[in-house]
Amino acid sequence: MDFQSLRKRCISETKSKIRQSVNYDNLIIQAVSSNEDLEKIINMVVTRLREWYSLYNPEFPRSIQSDAKFVELILRKDKCSLLKETNTLQTMGADLRKIDIDAILYLTKQAENLIALQDQQKDYIESILRQHCPNTLEVLGASLTAKFIHHAGSLRRLAITTAPVVQIMGAEQSLFKHMKKKGKCPKYGILYAHPLINRVKKQNRGKMARAIADKASLAMKLDFFKGSFQGKKLKTILNQKASVL
Amino acid sequence: MDFQSLRKRCISETKSKIRQSVNYDNLIIQAVSSNEDLEKIINMVVTRLREWYSLYNPEFPRSIQSDAKFVELILRKDKCSLLKETNTLQTMGADLRKIDIDAILYLTKQAENLIALQDQQKDYIESILRQHCPNTLEVLGASLTAKFIHHAGSLRRLAITTAPVVQIMGAEQSLFKHMKKKGKCPKYGILYAHPLINRVKKQNRGKMARAIADKASLAMKLDFFKGSFQGKKLKTILNQKASVL
Repeated sequence: MDFQSLRKRCISETKSKIRQSVNYDNLIIQAVSSNEDLEKIINMVVTRLREWYSLYNPEFPRSIQSDAKFVELILRKDKCSLLKETNTLQTMGADLRKIDIDAILYLTKQAENLIALQDQQKDYIESILRQHCPNTLEVLGASLTAKFIHHAGSLRRLAITTAPVVQIMGAEQSLFKHMKKKGKCPKYGILYAHPLINRVKKQNRGKMARAIADKASLAMKLDFFKGSFQGKKLKTILNQKASVL
Repeated sequence: MDFQSLRKRCISETKSKIRQSVNYDNLIIQAVSSNEDLEKIINMVVTRLREWYSLYNPEFPRSIQSDAKFVELILRKDKCSLLKETNTLQTMGADLRKIDIDAILYLTKQAENLIALQDQQKDYIESILRQHCPNTLEVLGASLTAKFIHHAGSLRRLAITTAPVVQIMGAEQSLFKHMKKKGKCPKYGILYAHPLINRVKKQNRGKMARAIADKASLAMKLDFFKGSFQGKKLKTILNQKASVL
């Protein structure tokens, strides 16, 4: 075989290997990053919207906390009925021309679409996770599982690491601060958002995090090495632990 | 009149004054800020999209520069025809399931909507400007006029300031640096983006900026004090100046 055809063969081989290297880890990471982007974007758009809409009807945006609800209501109802709902007799908002209001509503429509897309993406992420890591999904929930995979880079890396690393993952900065003897050792990183951690008393949260990390690490190993489904059992153990602490 | 009713009257009076104080300046500022937000958002979404889509078809995103076109093409055409367009025989992209591709395309659809919204907003901004400051619009163009009003806070402030201030507006930082004797005096701020400035030689750009600021300041005064429309005349003078420099 001459050099030219060998070269071609090598390139073709490499290309097909790159092609096969794409797996669900990549998909999860992209979807999660996109979801986090969307979070920021929706925040940005709705903040702008609240300010802009306040020129027209300042009483309403202040009366409503939820962004999704705010967007839905100003799309569906007109100024009069919204003012009635907030019991405002005299509004401080100007009467805008239709073209000005429309400009606001176009943006509102997009905000609504973006919020819908975010929900859709969450469902999508959960569907991949249910297929590829059911155990971890059961123990940690969709958003945390996705964050862990995003942080570690792949399920493989999570599976071959130890439980203490899982416990501290995401708190690298304060860990290194601690190692330079400049602060306390962190109790949890990404795990902080786990619902069970918020349920126990403050002084027991470290213990709880250790227990969750232990079971989560087990679940990750089960998922990566294609073990059986034991998520429910692991979760029950954790729930019992949380009720004792 | 007793105190209570006086108080009520005062509040009501204030509310109606606030109500009347909303004018097109506020609308322009909100619309421009929203447009700038959108610029950032579209950038964020498309960057994510290019990365995500690369798992599926890495050859295509690299071959196309324009974001709007990229979004349009991957929505309208499938992988095969796109690969043909880039003359790729062997792709490095994985074959994804339909559900994975759909997740990407939903985001693409939103990106397309956002790009459309941005154009719509630009038209809206131009329509308000054409009505309220036709002279400045003629001299500076829509995006620059909007930026100036956004920066100064209102057309009134622009009208009562002087041409040199208009020239330097937006370059406050380097101006103060210069005043502390730490750098050159800036030649232009927001004006930098004016098309005529890019047309003249580099050493003449300061002169050109001075001329534009002069005419722009005149136009702002004309607009604010409801003078006649002389935008075309001012623009012709500037074009002549630019062709001489």
